[in-house]
Amino acid sequence: MKNQKQIRQTAYKPDDGFIGRKQELIRETVIPYQYSVLRDEAPDTEKSHVIANFVNAGRALRGEDVGDGFYGMVFQDSDAAKWLETVAYSLAIHPDEELEATADEVINIIASAQDEDGYLDTAFTIKDRDHRWQNLLEGHELYCAGHMMEAACAYYEATGKDKLLKVMEKNAEHIYDVFITGGHKGYPGHPEVELALMKMYRLTGNHKCLELAEHFINVRGVDPHYFENERKSRDWVVWGSDGRDHDYQQSGRPVREQSDATGHSVRAVYLYTAMADLASETDDKELLDACNRLWESITGKRMYITGGIGSSVNGEAFTVDYDLPNDTAYCETCASIGLMFFASRMLESNADGRYGDVMEQAFYNTVLAGIQLDGKSFFYVNPLECVPGISGKASTHWHDLTQRPKWYACACCPPNLARCVCSFGKYAYGENEKTAFCHMFASGKVEFENGLKLSCKTEYPFGFDVNYTVLDGEGALAIRIPAWSKEFSLTVNGEIVNHEIRNGYAYLSVKASDEVALKLDSLPYYVYPSNKIPELTGSVALCRGPLVYCFEGKDNGWCDGNILSLSLTGDDDISPEKAERLPDEIVALKVPAVKSCEVSGLYTLSKPVYEKGYAKAIPYYAWCNRGENQMRVWMNLI
Amino acid sequence: MKNQKQIRQTAYKPDDGFIGRKQELIRETVIPYQYSVLRDEAPDTEKSHVIANFVNAGRALRGEDVGDGFYGMVFQDSDAAKWLETVAYSLAIHPDEELEATADEVINIIASAQDEDGYLDTAFTIKDRDHRWQNLLEGHELYCAGHMMEAACAYYEATGKDKLLKVMEKNAEHIYDVFITGGHKGYPGHPEVELALMKMYRLTGNHKCLELAEHFINVRGVDPHYFENERKSRDWVVWGSDGRDHDYQQSGRPVREQSDATGHSVRAVYLYTAMADLASETDDKELLDACNRLWESITGKRMYITGGIGSSVNGEAFTVDYDLPNDTAYCETCASIGLMFFASRMLESNADGRYGDVMEQAFYNTVLAGIQLDGKSFFYVNPLECVPGISGKASTHWHDLTQRPKWYACACCPPNLARCVCSFGKYAYGENEKTAFCHMFASGKVEFENGLKLSCKTEYPFGFDVNYTVLDGEGALAIRIPAWSKEFSLTVNGEIVNHEIRNGYAYLSVKASDEVALKLDSLPYYVYPSNKIPELTGSVALCRGPLVYCFEGKDNGWCDGNILSLSLTGDDDISPEKAERLPDEIVALKVPAVKSCEVSGLYTLSKPVYEKGYAKAIPYYAWCNRGENQMRVWMNLI
Repeated sequence: MKNQKQIRQTAYKPDDGFIGRKQELIRETVIPYQYSVLRDEAPDTEKSHVIANFVNAGRALRGEDVGDGFYGMVFQDSDAAKWLETVAYSLAIHPDEELEATADEVINIIASAQDEDGYLDTAFTIKDRDHRWQNLLEGHELYCAGHMMEAACAYYEATGKDKLLKVMEKNAEHIYDVFITGGHKGYPGHPEVELALMKMYRLTGNHKCLELAEHFINVRGVDPHYFENERKSRDWVVWGSDGRDHDYQQSGRPVREQSDATGHSVRAVYLYTAMADLASETDDKELLDACNRLWESITGKRMYITGGIGSSVNGEAFTVDYDLPNDTAYCETCASIGLMFFASRMLESNADGRYGDVMEQAFYNTVLAGIQLDGKSFFYVNPLECVPGISGKASTHWHDLTQRPKWYACACCPPNLARCVCSFGKYAYGENEKTAFCHMFASGKVEFENGLKLSCKTEYPFGFDVNYTVLDGEGALAIRIPAWSKEFSLTVNGEIVNHEIRNGYAYLSVKASDEVALKLDSLPYYVYPSNKIPELTGSVALCRGPLVYCFEGKDNGWCDGNILSLSLTGDDDISPEKAERLPDEIVALKVPAVKSCEVSGLYTLSKPVYEKGYAKAIPYYAWCNRGENQMRVWMNLI
Repeated sequence: MKNQKQIRQTAYKPDDGFIGRKQELIRETVIPYQYSVLRDEAPDTEKSHVIANFVNAGRALRGEDVGDGFYGMVFQDSDAAKWLETVAYSLAIHPDEELEATADEVINIIASAQDEDGYLDTAFTIKDRDHRWQNLLEGHELYCAGHMMEAACAYYEATGKDKLLKVMEKNAEHIYDVFITGGHKGYPGHPEVELALMKMYRLTGNHKCLELAEHFINVRGVDPHYFENERKSRDWVVWGSDGRDHDYQQSGRPVREQSDATGHSVRAVYLYTAMADLASETDDKELLDACNRLWESITGKRMYITGGIGSSVNGEAFTVDYDLPNDTAYCETCASIGLMFFASRMLESNADGRYGDVMEQAFYNTVLAGIQLDGKSFFYVNPLECVPGISGKASTHWHDLTQRPKWYACACCPPNLARCVCSFGKYAYGENEKTAFCHMFASGKVEFENGLKLSCKTEYPFGFDVNYTVLDGEGALAIRIPAWSKEFSLTVNGEIVNHEIRNGYAYLSVKASDEVALKLDSLPYYVYPSNKIPELTGSVALCRGPLVYCFEGKDNGWCDGNILSLSLTGDDDISPEKAERLPDEIVALKVPAVKSCEVSGLYTLSKPVYEKGYAKAIPYYAWCNRGENQMRVWMNLI
């Protein structure tokens, strides 16, 4: 049964707090930059061709010359979809006529690329119209459809304009005709359409969307060999997967029987998101049980402290329990975004603080690390250790780069990150008929459908006072108390009041003009690993609030930037500091440490000689903003 | 200028000391087992087909039906060569008429597979006679020829029988005709023939062998694009390499200009071995300089404490400086054998103790770890950490197995290890006109060409007294004092005598009936890593003599086998112990340690709770002899 849901996307209006500033960065820098990429007008960057693909697909449908045809990944269309979705969220926060006009124009171009029967995919429409729906494993037709559905919903919610929504409803009906009416036995190679169909259903009430989402979830893995047989039935491939890696495809058994998070981590969490969505929508206990098991598998055995998931570059995938290497970590930005999706949907059935804990762990660490502070370059892979000379160089480290590139040939992450940041309000706030939920702390105003209207003022994640004012309405307020906050205080109108703590949330009755003040623990703290994680034995991490800290060479001249020579003593004498050459808002930490003196050669029989001092740490998300240098999250504890 | 050389292979006769027992294991167990593999008579093991390939190649040459044709790797012939070479070394130690008759028979079969012009390679003779010498990158024709030349030399030296030697001299002349007279521009994809030609030259005096070895070394990398162009010039491949990875192929520049040890680690050290051989033979200063740089690159920046080399499964290769992961280490057994070859040849030009140090580091740790104590199964890959559940399971760990297999489809390592063990004397002892060199400590008798005759008694590597008796002759004795031995004493006839220590060797004048007693340091010691190695920060290893120790779950019930939960305190209270369920000769060590208590979940804010105790370690080479369990060499130091 649905416990609570995300707020409408127009319900949260940021102020100039941390979240508002990040959203402004996306609006001012990322949206125009990405648009120039989509149009191939950005200098010195990967070719995109996304807009041209839609133009050319339209030409193909009209029987015209397709010009320079299709270019890019088979899922190139999704970049346009994510850009539009980001624009929609941004318009909901910050109206902008010119941007809206540009988006309308892009939507017109997209609409022109839709086939008469509702089909929409430029790769196949331009190159392989007779190959439609033959390669669900690699073809990404359903994936692209899903992203465009999400964009359509967001754009309609933000602007009231339904052109793209109608295009995608027609597209959904076409997919229904193929898979339900037509009896196509396939299911998505890359889950995404399922969660998008749930959004479409909730927005439009179109029952076919629910039916279709349910269908794709229900048939998945019932025939584990579907993809292998699909491969055998055609003489063409995209990359050449034989479909036999059932774990990679989350297709080894019906989803209700799955327990371990396996395979391509983005695909996994997109699937689990839809499963959790459907479970809450249809009150499907068995499905929710599977979601709970998969959640435990990820967060209890396969997740980095940064909320990163997917340990291995091989298939961008989960590996096995407790296999969490720092240096070769994959931790795709998209995967942590997907983990936030999953967490947010788990909250629908069960408002439990652990989901919010993970949501902000993923957001404030891996997701934000995905973007340079100036908004102009992006990480796809987010390792927890960087050693120039090894990182990006050794053949086992080609994927973990020492600097953020401006764009990627496979450009899933930057636009995904942009839409995630701009829709932060939907993850931060939730509601049901009686209660307003504060899952995460986002400064600004929020209007709940239940009549409550709040303002929230906070400098979170660097300030730990969160002050709510009830602007209107009456009801319950449920505020998540983060698990990392060893102490906290909560007052209403200056008085300590009775409040119930249930599953990590403080529940309060509030009415208009109430002032609710939450003080969270501002003390930095150490985190220690389980002794089941081989990579982390004997190490310690430093955190403050939701932020995981890291140590960079640039801040640690006393060891000549050789972070590898530093160990933390674990002492509590930690103090906030100014971070050099980083924005003022960022709080650095000075922490007791020792450095080991250099020795000649690889190995020595002489005991290490240590020098005492202080190391300086900065938030992990801000790493790599001052040029190439060593970086470490987990430090040796001495 | 040649400073000293290896002893003749018949010059060392082991007693029942450690080396003699290992050689006996090879003779009794490995040689017959491998012979049954070569004949496909071993149950439950990888198919080999090696003997059948030679039989079928003979048929092909006679125009007969080739039966079941060729099977196996393109370098399958080399397994027969290494077996024969091992047999030769074994016969030199322990005459065995039946074994010799079997070997003669195998030699007859091999001889029957030689083409009229001297060509010998069953893969090409059976399948692709018109493809000869077209794919030096992948075809391994020169590699197989090299191994057979080594076998031919060894068999002649052991038995005086020259049938195989004549076959391989003819083969060498054929290769000379193709590459020198015929002007073929290629050079070996997998170096090996160069070092083998040096052996042939030294044994037979055939100058064409020297010329050919020199030619292959000199042309290598002069045209760095040779392999790429070779690939373009043919329409067939073995595995499909495009030849563009010059580092992998050690072909990016002429060998005299190379400085970093790169690429496939076995190929690298085989090449460097031949370079060092040639440098000492021809007094080639420039070539020796390159060898010195490459030696420093390996031993100063790219070598594990176990003498393992080649950090990565990707290409079985070196990666970059200080990239030495324990868990995903490749450390191919063959690579450490090749490192011994390289060290032994470096000694030719310069009798410096560091070569012997590395030679025994490689032998007593990685090489011996390659074989089960019962001689019946083998490791190809030798990681320094094993965590069942991750090792062999995670996609990044498929290569690091938790148990030794009985054989391999690519079976280079087991027979290489066998020939290495049986020829240990040649690496342990060296000589020049005046001096007998003891590079390593091998119990037994040894006769030098310079007239000195010694007996050596020692329980090394578990005992640290080495007692030499001069049985005959008069001259200088040069005994390597291992770098790990913090203290030592040396007496002649019970008296401390004047001895010069030069470059790690103690030089003594001796005469018949002198008793020379060396006492090395028997105390276990800790080794600490350079702070440039990311993987090893904060860790420590335990050693005794040349043996690196490791910690296995089976010995450490007090932490329920979870070695990951143990840290060493670094205290000197270390004592020898009986190793449970391991042969009596093996000395285990009891060492002060703490174990961390288990926590729930992946991460915790609670400080670790430790319990004091003692951990038990066994020699690394003996790991994995009591079933699957956790194993670690580098332990957290607390």
